[in-house]
Amino acid sequence: MKSIIIASTSSLHAGSYLEYILPTLQEHFKNCKTLLFIPYARPGGISHTEYTQKVSEAFAKINIAVKGIHEFENPENAIKNAEGIFTGGGNTFLLVTQLYKNNIMQLLAETVKNGTPYLGTSAGSNICGLSMQTTNDMPIVYPPSFQTLGLIPFNLNPHYLDPIEQSTHMGETRETRIKEFHAFNNIPVLGLREGSWLEVKGEKITLKGNLKARLFQQNKTAEELEPESDLSNLK
Amino acid sequence: MKSIIIASTSSLHAGSYLEYILPTLQEHFKNCKTLLFIPYARPGGISHTEYTQKVSEAFAKINIAVKGIHEFENPENAIKNAEGIFTGGGNTFLLVTQLYKNNIMQLLAETVKNGTPYLGTSAGSNICGLSMQTTNDMPIVYPPSFQTLGLIPFNLNPHYLDPIEQSTHMGETRETRIKEFHAFNNIPVLGLREGSWLEVKGEKITLKGNLKARLFQQNKTAEELEPESDLSNLK
Repeated sequence: MKSIIIASTSSLHAGSYLEYILPTLQEHFKNCKTLLFIPYARPGGISHTEYTQKVSEAFAKINIAVKGIHEFENPENAIKNAEGIFTGGGNTFLLVTQLYKNNIMQLLAETVKNGTPYLGTSAGSNICGLSMQTTNDMPIVYPPSFQTLGLIPFNLNPHYLDPIEQSTHMGETRETRIKEFHAFNNIPVLGLREGSWLEVKGEKITLKGNLKARLFQQNKTAEELEPESDLSNLK
Repeated sequence: MKSIIIASTSSLHAGSYLEYILPTLQEHFKNCKTLLFIPYARPGGISHTEYTQKVSEAFAKINIAVKGIHEFENPENAIKNAEGIFTGGGNTFLLVTQLYKNNIMQLLAETVKNGTPYLGTSAGSNICGLSMQTTNDMPIVYPPSFQTLGLIPFNLNPHYLDPIEQSTHMGETRETRIKEFHAFNNIPVLGLREGSWLEVKGEKITLKGNLKARLFQQNKTAEELEPESDLSNLK
């Protein structure tokens, strides 16, 4: 049975890394003594080792030991044998490129579908959707495909940002960008604001946190979803 | 001799489409009675016809007739025979995909290098660099390559946006994204603020408009460039 947390962000402005969601993670990973961390998204270009160290410090607070996938000789075995898996944020193009390069995109999807508890934040959440095509990230590397894990039957836009009132900037708003996606694709897109996450238990998908999320569907007006909304039938 | 204008944006907040730059365009296209418009980037998903109509209305003010490339049976001949060429903004992934699909990326580069006057705004400016990898756009379609026209020996970030002070949003700033690009690429990136443009005359590249631009180079501190800065030696 799938057991997944898909979070908009790792951190809130007023709080340390993973702090706001740590009680939820304690429950989510209650059967895990160790966690496999996938640091491929490398926020700000930091190294796999530095990134894994940061994650280790956060999970030490709930007594879970963390090992980075780069520390294993064989990344496929690392995934197969993991008690739980966390993919952190950073650059989604880089993350997806590395998952394909190491030939673990499909294996990771299968492993999580078969029940290994998973956490994604930001880029690590983006890849839970059908494709990475609603990422906010810059295309700093060229991935072999935009297809991702497909753990849920729609796409995500993490760090969803409402239009800034009275802005004079002429660059597209997030909503405009997602509408452009829907000019060419019919996959629903959920804009997850920072502090929201999706809980996936088997086939049940629930919006968690205190904030509303914004749902975009092709040829429909965008709508606001309340916390605890059931998204199991969205596709 | 190359004769190119590469603008951050088509429009300023207080002004109609192309209004702020129209006097410059009148001089730039002074030998053109007609202009070939490339509407492939389709901002907000509007049609090629709608987009071309909007551009026609702006250029009518300086007595230049506009024809969209989609109106020609053969896009290659349209480019070869053009008096001047304008590529408008919208989604860079879509624009680049269409340029490759219609097999005109290389021809467009050669034609502009051989002297056909060119104007790019936003996505149409992004493609003037070596690659589209510093675009702000969402990857709504999968292009066959990120390589672009290479009319200048560096990359651009149009609509460059300074960090918003006191923002509590945790998504990456534009500067952070460009730094991530430089973790994997050594191409310089010029952040062009809205209202700035580059003028390319032969091999001379000059920053125009009233604003400073922000230059990012690998392993260097970002620097602010004054209007009229000479960028001919940047690479």
